[in-house]
Amino acid sequence: MYNFKNDYSEGAHPRILQKLIDTNLLQELGYGEDQYSQEAKFLLKEKINNQNASIYFVSGGTQTNLLVISSLLRLHEAVISTQTGHIFVHETGAIEALGHRVITVDTKDGKLSIDGIDKVLEQYNLRPHMVKPKMVYISNSTEIGTIYSKNELEEISDYCKRKNLYLFLDGARLGHALTANNNTLTLSDIAKLTDVFYIGATKNGALLGEAIVFNNANLAPDFDYALKQKGALLAKGRLLGIQFLELFRDNLYFDLAKHANKMAMKIADAIQKKGYSFLTDSSTNQIFPILPNHLIKHLSIKYLFFEWKHIDDQHTAIRLITSWATDEKIVDQFIADLY
Amino acid sequence: MYNFKNDYSEGAHPRILQKLIDTNLLQELGYGEDQYSQEAKFLLKEKINNQNASIYFVSGGTQTNLLVISSLLRLHEAVISTQTGHIFVHETGAIEALGHRVITVDTKDGKLSIDGIDKVLEQYNLRPHMVKPKMVYISNSTEIGTIYSKNELEEISDYCKRKNLYLFLDGARLGHALTANNNTLTLSDIAKLTDVFYIGATKNGALLGEAIVFNNANLAPDFDYALKQKGALLAKGRLLGIQFLELFRDNLYFDLAKHANKMAMKIADAIQKKGYSFLTDSSTNQIFPILPNHLIKHLSIKYLFFEWKHIDDQHTAIRLITSWATDEKIVDQFIADLY
Amino acid sequence: MYNFKNDYSEGAHPRILQKLIDTNLLQELGYGEDQYSQEAKFLLKEKINNQNASIYFVSGGTQTNLLVISSLLRLHEAVISTQTGHIFVHETGAIEALGHRVITVDTKDGKLSIDGIDKVLEQYNLRPHMVKPKMVYISNSTEIGTIYSKNELEEISDYCKRKNLYLFLDGARLGHALTANNNTLTLSDIAKLTDVFYIGATKNGALLGEAIVFNNANLAPDFDYALKQKGALLAKGRLLGIQFLELFRDNLYFDLAKHANKMAMKIADAIQKKGYSFLTDSSTNQIFPILPNHLIKHLSIKYLFFEWKHIDDQHTAIRLITSWATDEKIVDQFIADLY
Amino acid sequence: MYNFKNDYSEGAHPRILQKLIDTNLLQELGYGEDQYSQEAKFLLKEKINNQNASIYFVSGGTQTNLLVISSLLRLHEAVISTQTGHIFVHETGAIEALGHRVITVDTKDGKLSIDGIDKVLEQYNLRPHMVKPKMVYISNSTEIGTIYSKNELEEISDYCKRKNLYLFLDGARLGHALTANNNTLTLSDIAKLTDVFYIGATKNGALLGEAIVFNNANLAPDFDYALKQKGALLAKGRLLGIQFLELFRDNLYFDLAKHANKMAMKIADAIQKKGYSFLTDSSTNQIFPILPNHLIKHLSIKYLFFEWKHIDDQHTAIRLITSWATDEKIVDQFIADLY
Repeated sequence: MYNFKNDYSEGAHPRILQKLIDTNLLQELGYGEDQYSQEAKFLLKEKINNQNASIYFVSGGTQTNLLVISSLLRLHEAVISTQTGHIFVHETGAIEALGHRVITVDTKDGKLSIDGIDKVLEQYNLRPHMVKPKMVYISNSTEIGTIYSKNELEEISDYCKRKNLYLFLDGARLGHALTANNNTLTLSDIAKLTDVFYIGATKNGALLGEAIVFNNANLAPDFDYALKQKGALLAKGRLLGIQFLELFRDNLYFDLAKHANKMAMKIADAIQKKGYSFLTDSSTNQIFPILPNHLIKHLSIKYLFFEWKHIDDQHTAIRLITSWATDEKIVDQFIADLY
Repeated sequence: MYNFKNDYSEGAHPRILQKLIDTNLLQELGYGEDQYSQEAKFLLKEKINNQNASIYFVSGGTQTNLLVISSLLRLHEAVISTQTGHIFVHETGAIEALGHRVITVDTKDGKLSIDGIDKVLEQYNLRPHMVKPKMVYISNSTEIGTIYSKNELEEISDYCKRKNLYLFLDGARLGHALTANNNTLTLSDIAKLTDVFYIGATKNGALLGEAIVFNNANLAPDFDYALKQKGALLAKGRLLGIQFLELFRDNLYFDLAKHANKMAMKIADAIQKKGYSFLTDSSTNQIFPILPNHLIKHLSIKYLFFEWKHIDDQHTAIRLITSWATDEKIVDQFIADLY
Repeated sequence: MYNFKNDYSEGAHPRILQKLIDTNLLQELGYGEDQYSQEAKFLLKEKINNQNASIYFVSGGTQTNLLVISSLLRLHEAVISTQTGHIFVHETGAIEALGHRVITVDTKDGKLSIDGIDKVLEQYNLRPHMVKPKMVYISNSTEIGTIYSKNELEEISDYCKRKNLYLFLDGARLGHALTANNNTLTLSDIAKLTDVFYIGATKNGALLGEAIVFNNANLAPDFDYALKQKGALLAKGRLLGIQFLELFRDNLYFDLAKHANKMAMKIADAIQKKGYSFLTDSSTNQIFPILPNHLIKHLSIKYLFFEWKHIDDQHTAIRLITSWATDEKIVDQFIADLY
Repeated sequence: MYNFKNDYSEGAHPRILQKLIDTNLLQELGYGEDQYSQEAKFLLKEKINNQNASIYFVSGGTQTNLLVISSLLRLHEAVISTQTGHIFVHETGAIEALGHRVITVDTKDGKLSIDGIDKVLEQYNLRPHMVKPKMVYISNSTEIGTIYSKNELEEISDYCKRKNLYLFLDGARLGHALTANNNTLTLSDIAKLTDVFYIGATKNGALLGEAIVFNNANLAPDFDYALKQKGALLAKGRLLGIQFLELFRDNLYFDLAKHANKMAMKIADAIQKKGYSFLTDSSTNQIFPILPNHLIKHLSIKYLFFEWKHIDDQHTAIRLITSWATDEKIVDQFIADLY
């Protein structure tokens, strides 16, 4: 059985493991004060072209989201997300557990538009009986594989500045977004257009690791306390620093994402050629084809994937995810198994 | 400069890195559902001789403490600790941040006694104007290197059962405690005498990892939700399972701790022979010799360590920590540098 | 200008003020240990026909809701409400601020049905990545004036028992519900069918005061701690006890609600006779007539009320609220001002 | 039995009840928007001589303390208090329940000194492993009846400004402090020297009510949200406004406190003349005489009071509290019963 359920089924890219071995017995300071973490932060500031940024490495996406959101908001402030946003759907109420409402906007393509945000602001207007929307949360790529264009992100960014809302971009799959065929954004654009974002590595070649980037160091001057208090500060912080250093010292991070996208698009093209349609217009490593149930049953013999959504009595949308580690031979075989 | 500041200056034991490489491209389920985590839990239940236990792997000690304590207590319930307890001193108020007071008891040897706990219960008696003490938190080995005897732990355990208090043992350095020369406890004793404890690996050979053991699975039936909600559930949970599997498939975990203790005791013996005394009666890998300031200055040229406590104008207590990775040649050199 | 905006524009029923004067200088114990509070609790247990209940007096509805919900739920557990529920719309995220998601169900009549609850349970099924729905929150009368029939409440109650969900009824306007013309429930039914409910007095004749009733004292054995910890325990608890004693020593509580309903229904009948329709099918003291904008403008000269919802270019739904203190002469005048 | 246990055994000063009756049926806006609350805030700003203040009325001291402290601090920030501070001893961990450690300083006289605060800052210095002390909490009068001199408060105020700490003064018994014979402070001094304080009325003539004063409105611009979210915003806010208006429209508030002090000092003088000593040097309405146990037993027949502290086999310190309502005839009788 080959697993297309997610992009964290394997370990880490071999270069990362090799680097762990090479540095293993060198003594380093703990809690992120090691030289690798320092170098990795320096390197990332160059890549995003922002020396004024403040960067922290943590272990996972939920941890990142809860840390960032709770550090920036006060208890009566809320965050706006799509109804498919990871913080709303798959993080066990982590944001509410820290005191904040997640206000959702229904969207078709997984992307927030300023119209949707605007309706929330209109609705949440009875001070002090309602929470105060104070942050916009978007994911790129989104939870359903779509991406934001530069134009779209600029519009949201302008809107947020005008309305005094923080803009936070969840980059669990940022590499996949930035290497999609229809992408128009750069890392540096994202650093310019958001208040805070993160660069996800767990789903793109690392054992674990996300880099939180505050584009203005003044935004969260005490974030180090929050890291430690929430149990997110690893004693051996080197583990995170080493991985980011290896992923970004050349183009590895983007090459890995590009491979994942390529594999997904290869499958998508084949499915489309068979005449099937898709639930979402994905250009990244998650695709949601709508297939006849008998085909799904047939594919299930050799492949693992999620049945995502009931469409009608004959059809279901499934979710297929590829990764940096996806074997093109398996992809070809999967395509051959389509009919 | 050689670092005696802590026991997390190096990476992981080479066997662990090798195992990561060997298993790297095998596909596994995410979020701790991988086969390695399952096997490691099975193995640990055997080692602690308790099939009824419920085990979870997480990344660090602060994360463990906040998860366990907040899962077992309600908001008006408090935890009792020594004034040197890690949760009180070095976790940035993580327990208070989740709503619970840490009530401290002053002790000389870093260990709680039932007398100390009893005084707290007497004092916190004005219901409902005071919080309700509901958990006892102890560390073994303690934050100052001492250990609990079987007799001491039995007394505390009996007391807690009588008073309806949870007993939680912080085992960040449990290996070091259980391999100390004066130790009288086994893993299985600890499983029998506490409600919940953890087996620390970050400070004993792993890249990261603590195993939380609820000795009665009914104690925290929804702990999986808490793990995810607090950002502690790693997507690639295999990283934790593999490490515990490797540490416990033979005696590696204990061998590593034994080495650390041996190195510390070798230094301690030498210091004692020079006629110096110690701040605490440690038998594990943290020692606190009281040295003349000029000697400290001399040692500082080649070694890193913490100056722990001002004793008098001429003397200071320092903290030296050894680990599984401490090189005996350096230890011998350090001893030679004493005068 | 006469105010139809709410039912808390005046002070307290004169009998309550008189009782405060009569008892003013008698010394009583503080923090709810006074004899009046004790007597009032005894009396209420008789009225609800449940000696096993546990009763607490607090100052307001938001305080009640946050205390009850946070006392019964753990952090990963959520409460289900209609999208019009007071806890979702008008309590500044008080429930989220204590860590719990409010999951909403869209309804037309302000009432939850078991179909709606069932869909939530189906959706929140991916353990442990989603919060666990654990409580159903309903209001009677609802926030839009409708009421639950005995049959409806029995269905929900049965469902909640089967699914192991707490059932909590917000009775901010419970008197109005139980004295509506189409009501089929009694206080005693509510005590039998819910786990916990409250009897609102702030909106029915008191200066302030809600009586929280746990129908099983075992449900929240430590609720007194929560009361004090959240700042809800009044030093002069007598103030609450005296008011409930006075409202319930005869039929005053219900008489006051009946008057409020009668005034609202008198206005509603007149509006209906003029040929206008209503947004909701209210039988209590809140009505939502849909009126032509020119009539609304005309009424606005002499009366205060909320413009609730834009209907079309010519029409708006307004909200009119009556109370125990509403003057029938003003009601008649209002009716005369309709055209 | 006459009750000297506390200063909230009676209802309210008769003038307050009369005012409630006089205004009872006048319609007012809810949630503190009533004219009485507006007028009372205006009046208080004049009394404290600070037009830039921002004032809120709430129901009790614990509510006040938790609202103020949680509004000003972030989760990793802590508040410094004496070990006798109300927030540490008698508020059921309300501050910790909102996420903040209360760091205590041992004192003899119930008062914080800058030496004590300074030691805390020295100790809490290992960023980010320790919480960050960010607020100083003092009570005037203190929980043991003593008061701060102008000089002492100036010193603390200067220190806090230098160290960037908020200074919060708990004025549950502020009237008693400001009317003590040895007092050197004015309301206006307190407004100048603290960042935020409160004027307690529950213990000085009101049914309930504390006035929170932020001396700089910019300190807590969103405090109205917090009030509502924590369940502290009364629907009939008029109840609080009316009481403060009545207490401060002339000198009533201070006259009531002066009476309480006078009664306590009369008892204290008599006790001293009998040759007994005191546990604390109180000049306000709480006194702590150390009496022979046989005398305590004798007094217990006719009077209620707390046995505060065991002194030796023959002696115990008791606490006697007087109030605005204490009858001088009873005081004289109590004195006559001494021997």
